[in-house]
Amino acid sequence: MATSLRHFAGLGYFPAAASSSGFTCFLRRDTPNFCAFVALRPIRPPAATVTAKASASPSTVEQHVQAVPSHSGDSSPASSAAAVPAPLRVGIVGFGNFGQFIAGGVQRQGHTVLAASRSDYSTYCAQHGIGFFRSVDALCEEQLDVLLICSSILSTEGVVRAIPFHRLRPDTIVADVLSVKEFPRNLLLEVLPPGFGIICTHPMFGPESGKHGWGKLPFVFDKVRVAEDGDQAAKCDQFLSIFEQEGCRMVEMSCAEHDRYAAGSQFITHTIGRVLSQLNLKSTPINTKGYETLLQLTKNTVSDSFDLYYGLFMYNINATEQLDNLEMSFEKVRQMLSGRLHEFIRKQIVERAAPVPADPSGKLANGLSSSPAARLL
Amino acid sequence: MATSLRHFAGLGYFPAAASSSGFTCFLRRDTPNFCAFVALRPIRPPAATVTAKASASPSTVEQHVQAVPSHSGDSSPASSAAAVPAPLRVGIVGFGNFGQFIAGGVQRQGHTVLAASRSDYSTYCAQHGIGFFRSVDALCEEQLDVLLICSSILSTEGVVRAIPFHRLRPDTIVADVLSVKEFPRNLLLEVLPPGFGIICTHPMFGPESGKHGWGKLPFVFDKVRVAEDGDQAAKCDQFLSIFEQEGCRMVEMSCAEHDRYAAGSQFITHTIGRVLSQLNLKSTPINTKGYETLLQLTKNTVSDSFDLYYGLFMYNINATEQLDNLEMSFEKVRQMLSGRLHEFIRKQIVERAAPVPADPSGKLANGLSSSPAARLL
Repeated sequence: MATSLRHFAGLGYFPAAASSSGFTCFLRRDTPNFCAFVALRPIRPPAATVTAKASASPSTVEQHVQAVPSHSGDSSPASSAAAVPAPLRVGIVGFGNFGQFIAGGVQRQGHTVLAASRSDYSTYCAQHGIGFFRSVDALCEEQLDVLLICSSILSTEGVVRAIPFHRLRPDTIVADVLSVKEFPRNLLLEVLPPGFGIICTHPMFGPESGKHGWGKLPFVFDKVRVAEDGDQAAKCDQFLSIFEQEGCRMVEMSCAEHDRYAAGSQFITHTIGRVLSQLNLKSTPINTKGYETLLQLTKNTVSDSFDLYYGLFMYNINATEQLDNLEMSFEKVRQMLSGRLHEFIRKQIVERAAPVPADPSGKLANGLSSSPAARLL
Repeated sequence: MATSLRHFAGLGYFPAAASSSGFTCFLRRDTPNFCAFVALRPIRPPAATVTAKASASPSTVEQHVQAVPSHSGDSSPASSAAAVPAPLRVGIVGFGNFGQFIAGGVQRQGHTVLAASRSDYSTYCAQHGIGFFRSVDALCEEQLDVLLICSSILSTEGVVRAIPFHRLRPDTIVADVLSVKEFPRNLLLEVLPPGFGIICTHPMFGPESGKHGWGKLPFVFDKVRVAEDGDQAAKCDQFLSIFEQEGCRMVEMSCAEHDRYAAGSQFITHTIGRVLSQLNLKSTPINTKGYETLLQLTKNTVSDSFDLYYGLFMYNINATEQLDNLEMSFEKVRQMLSGRLHEFIRKQIVERAAPVPADPSGKLANGLSSSPAARLL
């Protein structure tokens, strides 16, 4: 978990077993060369095996999991008809505010949600019909169709490296919802066994901006690695349709493109909010509408953790450039102001024309002294 | 006009004639000592004199001025009854976008608007029932109750110094609408003859934010110098009632207090808009709500002239401090980011733990090189 990913960069690190399979795999765009055309493992193990595995560690499964519908399996009328696909079994790792928020949409679209967290969310899950597990190991035994990583940016590497992939079905789709995309894309491509699907997503909203529904809110996704044979592609579309059905504006773009756009928009927005929060702005009796939008922006920004902001900076390769651009813009505005001020003062000295009015203390309106000595500075 | 105002600072500069009158004058707060208890000139000259003056320069008055109701005078039934005050005659100097915008409210409240500008607004004024004059001299002959300065911050000193006060009624109220307040307050106190009333106002909205009405929008005012005898006080209240009746949130505060609040709110807002405009932000396919408010703020800011922004800086004694605070806040955020980054890299070097993932070029996600040499920097 704590090993540098760069030890793997550019290396063919897949187990020999994976390439010995006879399955054909068609992989989509944005797949590094070393991943292309690697065979998928056999999908969907027999239902009997599933039950055995699930019952192997009963102590980690909360009682109320019984209320959660079990996987329908290949033999269910729905999947055999192939017209109405069976609901997905979506496992969520990291079940804080954002994980719970996303779980709501998944459930509204009729899918089963199971969640794992070190924190105890058993009461919340019992109230919401969600299967809760205290360990990711137990969750991974649950024959998931999709494993959705909802951890923070900073903890994601540790979370992903701790997933016991051998307990998952070998065609499981792993998806993330981070606000940066190249980082989880590279991480998942490096860590996941080759049969697993990878969908990198960014729901560009949260519990606050999406509290009145997800209609028209942007949902970015990149099908980083989805096999076209088997039913991985269909399940991928089924998973994405959750957000489509909730009314999101679906935006398919590469992770790299997302990070370029996000650094110039989301990261800048968070930076402005963070800078303003340092100013400790207060509401005044004479707020303009523009000022009120800044107060609201500041409030929204600081309601997110500094860790999120740091993650947006640290894990987006474009963020440093944007921060530099912002600093240069600030400097440019200062120069424009001081340039005009200098011009004004120079006119006063050289042409002795159009001075600013002085207050009784002898200071000009801009705080400069109007004394003859100061005028010579 | 080009003479420094500091030549007058602290000096008793009123004409001897003014102090020789027997009139008593009660002046309100914020009046400098040298203005207190100075007698007012006799008010409201005979109607015959008015007519003679108005006809003295017919060439400067547009034809359609005939359509504007003439002043009712003291003998009108309305003013003699004292229950329903006669409509005010409001002269506006500087008739650009903002002057026209304010004129709309004045007219809606049943008052007469007359305007003067070097630019030709005769067609606009004819269409809107406004008397238009090509010279301030001609406007000042029109027996105005209120002379409203709607010039830009930068041109106001020149405009005020060019007003032929001797052509105005000696109890005329002079008001301004600038976004800075100490500057026009001091200027008007220095330049205006002592009998003139002074109301400094700041309607904290404009043609854009007030396009759907002025309801609940803040209107700041300071009755800088209003005589309590005669009818100046009543006319002052009548003038302010225009904005009250339009639904504004009336905020009475001193000019100094306004400038302190405005530097920390309006000036900061304009500065953020100006800084972002230098970044040349574009709408992206993945705008968050927060980013969209910044795009809108930037658009609104640059729709105002740079001269306005420069005026907010130059003519508000508190602006420099706020600009410094903003710069320090930006620096603080940078330090927080680089501090965390440094901590992370240090852990990598010293503890060789939890590095960031590398892309194929060997660069860390944050743009730093992961090469051993770079790690020693």
